[in-house]
Amino acid sequence: MQGEIDSVRMREALQLAQNGVGTTSPNPPVGAVIYSGEQRIGEGYHEKAGEAHAERRAIQDAVRRGNGELLRGATLYVTLEPCSSHGKTPPCTDAILEAGIERVVYGMQDPDKRHRGRARSLLESKGVRVCTGVEEAACSGFLRPWVHSVKTGLPWVTAKVACTLDGRLTRRNERWISCAESLKLAHELRLQSDAILVGGATVRADNPALTIRTPLRKIPLCKQQPWRVVLTRDRTSLPADIKLFTDEFSSRTLVYERVESLSAVLRELHERYDVVRLMLECGGNLLRQFLEQGLVNEWVQDMSPIISGGPCSFLPGDFLPRELRLNEVTVRQVGRNYILRGLVDP
Amino acid sequence: MQGEIDSVRMREALQLAQNGVGTTSPNPPVGAVIYSGEQRIGEGYHEKAGEAHAERRAIQDAVRRGNGELLRGATLYVTLEPCSSHGKTPPCTDAILEAGIERVVYGMQDPDKRHRGRARSLLESKGVRVCTGVEEAACSGFLRPWVHSVKTGLPWVTAKVACTLDGRLTRRNERWISCAESLKLAHELRLQSDAILVGGATVRADNPALTIRTPLRKIPLCKQQPWRVVLTRDRTSLPADIKLFTDEFSSRTLVYERVESLSAVLRELHERYDVVRLMLECGGNLLRQFLEQGLVNEWVQDMSPIISGGPCSFLPGDFLPRELRLNEVTVRQVGRNYILRGLVDP
Repeated sequence: MQGEIDSVRMREALQLAQNGVGTTSPNPPVGAVIYSGEQRIGEGYHEKAGEAHAERRAIQDAVRRGNGELLRGATLYVTLEPCSSHGKTPPCTDAILEAGIERVVYGMQDPDKRHRGRARSLLESKGVRVCTGVEEAACSGFLRPWVHSVKTGLPWVTAKVACTLDGRLTRRNERWISCAESLKLAHELRLQSDAILVGGATVRADNPALTIRTPLRKIPLCKQQPWRVVLTRDRTSLPADIKLFTDEFSSRTLVYERVESLSAVLRELHERYDVVRLMLECGGNLLRQFLEQGLVNEWVQDMSPIISGGPCSFLPGDFLPRELRLNEVTVRQVGRNYILRGLVDP
Repeated sequence: MQGEIDSVRMREALQLAQNGVGTTSPNPPVGAVIYSGEQRIGEGYHEKAGEAHAERRAIQDAVRRGNGELLRGATLYVTLEPCSSHGKTPPCTDAILEAGIERVVYGMQDPDKRHRGRARSLLESKGVRVCTGVEEAACSGFLRPWVHSVKTGLPWVTAKVACTLDGRLTRRNERWISCAESLKLAHELRLQSDAILVGGATVRADNPALTIRTPLRKIPLCKQQPWRVVLTRDRTSLPADIKLFTDEFSSRTLVYERVESLSAVLRELHERYDVVRLMLECGGNLLRQFLEQGLVNEWVQDMSPIISGGPCSFLPGDFLPRELRLNEVTVRQVGRNYILRGLVDP
C-alpha cells in the first residue's frame, strides 16, 4: 500500500517536473511534492539554473500556504536524488534537514558516481528515513536527455522531420506537410529545446524564424529563445536580411562556418552555451551527416498521409554505414497527421 | 431496442461474410444469420461463385441443425440485398419465401440500379416484412472493393509496400523489412486477393513465389492460388527456371508483354479472370505508373522502425502529377513494425 501511494505521489512530482523542460539547462528539470499524512502541503519544480531547486521550492510553497508547521514530520517526494553539495545554490539536503522533513522519497539516483547515494547517507545519518527507486524507470526515462549530456558532454539531439509517407520533405506547390495540430507539437519541441540547428541550405531556401509560436502549453516567462545554430560552408552565403540576423532574437543566432567535426560543435554548444537538448530541423544532407556519425538520440517523424514523390527526400543517398533502429516507438494521430517517435538504439 | 438487436445480428452476419473474402469473386462475400426469437437457428456465408448464396446456406444450416420448423416466422439478416433474379443459382428471394421467413433485414442495397430495391418490393408483395439500411456503412465499407469492380469494370487495387521509415524497400545485406507478424498480414492480404501483380524487375531480382504461406486464418479449401500477373517489356527477359513458371501453380501465372495501357490489363483481368481484388507487390517504377494513372484504391504500408538510406525508394522520382491522399487511415503496431492503411481519395 505504501508503495502504491509513493508511486502516485512520485508521478505527481514528475508531472511538475515537466514544467521545467526547456528552461533549466544545464540543470535537470526536477519536481517535488510534500505530503503531511494524506495532505499535499507543498509542491514545486526547478525552473531555471541559479534559482531554487525543486525541493526548496516545495518547502517554500508549504510555508507560503501556511503549512510551515506541518513540514516537521512530512514526506518529501522528489524525482531526482537531492543535491548534497554547494553549487550555485546551497545543498538541498540542508533545506530538508532544516525543515524537519521526516522521510524523503526520490526517483532516480544522481548519475554522477561521485555524488550518487550521498544524499541518502547524509540524510539517514541525521535520522531522516530515505526511500529510493520509486518510479525509477519513469524518472530516469524523463531525465534521459540530461543524463546523456552529463555523461557524454554532448547535447541530446532530437531529429525532427515532417514528411509524406514516401519520405518527402516538400510537396508540389509548396503546400504544408504539417497540419495545424502537428505544428503545435513541433513548437512544443522547440520550447523544450535549448538550441535548434539547421543548415545554410535551409536558411537560404526557407528563411525560417525558428521561434516558438504555437506550443501546446503557455511559454514560461523565463524561457529564452533557443539558440538558433546555423552550419554553413560560407557565412557570406547567408543573406544579411534573413530573420535569424534581423529579428528581435538576432543575438540568439550562432553561425558555424566550415565545420570539420559536428561533435566538436555539439560539445561547444553544451560547454559554452549550456545546451542540453538540441533539435535538428535541417534538410536531408546535413541530417545524413548527423545520422552517419551516430549523433542523433531521438527521432520524431510527423507524417502526412499523402504520397507525393518529388526531389526532397528527408534522407537522400545510399545506405547509411549503420542503419538507425528505433526503440520505445510510439505512433499517434495528431490532427490529420501521424507522429512517430522513438529513441535511437545506441 | 429492435434497432440495437438488428445491429448486433447484422454485425454477426458481417463477421461471417469475412470468411468469404478471397474466394467468392466475381461474386461479393456475403454473410447471413437467421434468428427465431432470440435463438440463432442458422448461419452461412457465400463461399464460391456457382455455389449457394449466404441466404440459402443459412436456411440449409437451420434445416441441418434440426431447426427447419423454426424457419417459419423467423428473421433473416443478410449483409447485402438478396438476389431476385436467376444467375448461376436460383434467386434467393425464392428460397426465403419457400422457407417461410417472416422478416428480412439487409445491410446494403444492390449497387446495380436495375436490381436495387427489387428484393424489397418482391418480398413485401408476398407479405414478408423488410428492413434495410441496418449497419449500412459497415456493410458497404466491407463491400467497397466489389462495388468498385461492378461499377468500373476494374479490380480494386491494393498497393502494398514494406519499407523503412525513410521509404526504402531494401536494407543493407538483404535483411528483411517485414517482421514475422507483419508478414502474416501480407499473406492474409494475398489470401484476400484474386491476383497479385509484379513487374519483371521484381521477378528477376527476387524470384518470388507469390504464394500464400502464413496468413492469419486457415486457408479455405476452395481458395485457389491467386493469379500471378507479371508485366514485362520482354517475356524472354524472365528466366525459364523461376518459381512462377516451374512451381505447382505455374498455370496460375499470367505474363503481359509490352503493355500499353495498365487499365486495359486490369479490365482484362476483371473480365476474363474474374479478378475483383488485386494486390500490387511491385517495385517503385511500376508502382509509380499505377499511382500516376489513378489506378490504386487502397494503400498498405508495412513500416519497420528503422532508417536505412539506400538506392531503393518505394517511390523514386519527381512529384506525382497529382499527389495521393489517404482517407480512413489506421495505424497499428504489428510485431515490431507499424502498419498504416488507408483508402485513396478518388
